[in-house]
Amino acid sequence: MTDYDAALDQAIERLHDEGRYRTFIDIERKRGNFPHATWTRADGTEQPITVWCGNDYLGMGQHPVVLEAMHEAVETAGAGSGGTRNISGTTVYHKRLEAELAGLHGKEQALLFTSAYIANDATLSTLPKLFPGLIIYSDALNHASMIEGIRRNGGAKRVFRHNDVAHLRELLAADDPDAPKLIAFESVYSMDGDFGPIREICDIADEFGALTYLDEVHAVGMYGAHGGGVSERDGLAHRIDIINGTLGKAYGVMGGYIAASSRMCDAVRSYAPGFIFTTSLPPAIAAGAAASVRHLKSDAALREQHQTQAAILKTRLKALGLPLIDHGSHIVPLIVGDPIHTKKISDMLLERHGIYVQPINFPTVPRGTERLRFTPSPVHGPHEIDALVKGLDGLWSHCALNRQELAG
Amino acid sequence: MTDYDAALDQAIERLHDEGRYRTFIDIERKRGNFPHATWTRADGTEQPITVWCGNDYLGMGQHPVVLEAMHEAVETAGAGSGGTRNISGTTVYHKRLEAELAGLHGKEQALLFTSAYIANDATLSTLPKLFPGLIIYSDALNHASMIEGIRRNGGAKRVFRHNDVAHLRELLAADDPDAPKLIAFESVYSMDGDFGPIREICDIADEFGALTYLDEVHAVGMYGAHGGGVSERDGLAHRIDIINGTLGKAYGVMGGYIAASSRMCDAVRSYAPGFIFTTSLPPAIAAGAAASVRHLKSDAALREQHQTQAAILKTRLKALGLPLIDHGSHIVPLIVGDPIHTKKISDMLLERHGIYVQPINFPTVPRGTERLRFTPSPVHGPHEIDALVKGLDGLWSHCALNRQELAG
Ligand SMILES: Cc1ncc(COP(=O)(O)O)c(C=O)c1O
Ligand SMILES: Cc1ncc(COP(=O)(O)O)c(C=O)c1O
Repeated sequence: MTDYDAALDQAIERLHDEGRYRTFIDIERKRGNFPHATWTRADGTEQPITVWCGNDYLGMGQHPVVLEAMHEAVETAGAGSGGTRNISGTTVYHKRLEAELAGLHGKEQALLFTSAYIANDATLSTLPKLFPGLIIYSDALNHASMIEGIRRNGGAKRVFRHNDVAHLRELLAADDPDAPKLIAFESVYSMDGDFGPIREICDIADEFGALTYLDEVHAVGMYGAHGGGVSERDGLAHRIDIINGTLGKAYGVMGGYIAASSRMCDAVRSYAPGFIFTTSLPPAIAAGAAASVRHLKSDAALREQHQTQAAILKTRLKALGLPLIDHGSHIVPLIVGDPIHTKKISDMLLERHGIYVQPINFPTVPRGTERLRFTPSPVHGPHEIDALVKGLDGLWSHCALNRQELAG
Repeated sequence: MTDYDAALDQAIERLHDEGRYRTFIDIERKRGNFPHATWTRADGTEQPITVWCGNDYLGMGQHPVVLEAMHEAVETAGAGSGGTRNISGTTVYHKRLEAELAGLHGKEQALLFTSAYIANDATLSTLPKLFPGLIIYSDALNHASMIEGIRRNGGAKRVFRHNDVAHLRELLAADDPDAPKLIAFESVYSMDGDFGPIREICDIADEFGALTYLDEVHAVGMYGAHGGGVSERDGLAHRIDIINGTLGKAYGVMGGYIAASSRMCDAVRSYAPGFIFTTSLPPAIAAGAAASVRHLKSDAALREQHQTQAAILKTRLKALGLPLIDHGSHIVPLIVGDPIHTKKISDMLLERHGIYVQPINFPTVPRGTERLRFTPSPVHGPHEIDALVKGLDGLWSHCALNRQELAG
């Protein structure tokens, strides 16, 4: 008979061997005092820290309009929704949020899920049921949730090289012109911070009669005149058939959604197990998210401040020759290149400088590109940026890590 | 090229044809006044209703200890967690809740997911990676989330007839004795309200060296001296390797988990994409859930009241000869037997009597067993029970539906 414990020990040992065993850092952010937080060590002692790797990109998680909406909904409707969307779990809060999101993307409808992970997984795994024979063309660097959804039902799949539209075209041209097709990609890839070629992909989709599916998880709230993402900024939202977004990053709360035509939302709603068979979001979460989306439709200043902070941090890190990737987005990845050093620098930043940035390892990024990934935001002021830049400069010297040519 | 809109129309038309197109009822429960709620019709008009089909089985969604914990966490830590569990999204609230849940089930550890759906899906799809060659034996009536998880990675799977331990034994005996094995089942099946044969399955698991995986989603909070589910009530929790539960039903909030050995939790935590690549639960949700779990560890009176209410409702419906299924649990299913009648009765209850019970159709239950499923709770008083019983009696006569022999 199987020795299950031994098998588990082996699985965990593999991670230790490769230097990619993850230890979760236990933190508590202080409302009104973001990005400051308290780190509780394993031994129970506490240390004040600055969070530099969160995805609450705009600090909306402490915005009064969001918190008030949450308090109010808890008072009015209670804690949970008490049911699945179909069985007593659809409330006015869910409907209002869906209307807000449909409007954000200029789509007929939006469909709320408990997360963008499950929105991707459930939608992409359901589409082959709606379009028998569907072939999905997937960018090589798509997020795990898209990969899981595409793989789930064993439908036909083609992976095109990251952002390589020529390769995408080749793959499309090689398939049966009559087969239903869908191209799945992202607007901002969160590990490098580079943009997807939305316009080119829409052109190719038109040419080959393919549907387009765009994950705007790292862009909604932050790009476009109303926070509708890169597809809004570039005037391309109407050319995307299904837009996926999260309420857990720039909007600062939790949940995910797709925005699409009414019939698309109706069909996914009716056929996706990941939508149907789960308790719906609590009213307070839906209310907080709706308040955040509504607020960010008009607060363009916050979006600008965000970009400014990112630009300042990048300029300063570049001036020190640190090996930054800069694709012009709000994400600031610093390549270290191996898991051991990445972990070591991260540990030293935390312990010596009270700066928290989680090391990013394989499989989240390819081996050899292990990195620290900073997410400056409007709540990271000059003081925090200063402390980070100095801390990094010192450690880079201390560890004798490479610097880039200062020419670029 | 494909006409995608036509394909979507066809998919939706199929549901209309079979009488199982779902229309969501838009409701708002009133905190402090459960099970009363407001129904907002499509035309915007409102009607007061009583919710009879929710899964907030104990009314914890309006309990002051839960709501206070949520308010307090929103004030202290803000709206969302701001990250995935690994990247800045583990807080003291998550740790405390996991400790509470581990204690509840007498396990070394617990692992929190955004829902029990994703806990099932992510865990069951990850186990074959940890135990190569794993064969999963799955009860035929297991929940969609377990089925999805078991199917996902195309591992070996055997389906045994519902609650049929002889059939399970046959399937186990037919397989390689050396292959790793897992038996996945539920403690309370929510559509019939019947119990899984936990002891017998544990005995068989011992005999064949199989792991046991028990979904206690419709039992946690409600059974056992501390709400640890049927496995606690029957003194069998220590014989279950992985217990799955939800925080969205009896606990009244949202979220899901597994409780198991430390190494099992550590391995799932490290390998399951559905755990790793998604924003963690908001602190307020984790805080509310922890308060609810803690409270129900001692409030046995609420559990008893729950069972009493269910017994009263069942006695009264039986006295009228209505075709009830009674397996001694808290769930009260009334079989109508076809989708059209089920929908009609549900509509009439809602419109004429202000009683909300969602029709349950295929694929949630087998065709021919379409039903109304009532969930009495401590907040459903004599007045609400009276109104329901009278409403049903009248409609049963009006629609000339079958009654059972009154002998049983
Ligand atoms: C048996 C069973 N398992 C799991 C789930 C999923 O739980 P959750 O609502 O937390 O996703 C449900 C229902 O929602 C269920 O009935
Ligand atoms: C590109 C991308 N899509 C989807 C998700 C999932 O979003 P959520 O956190 O709402 O599940 C993430 C990260 O969490 C992501 O980075």
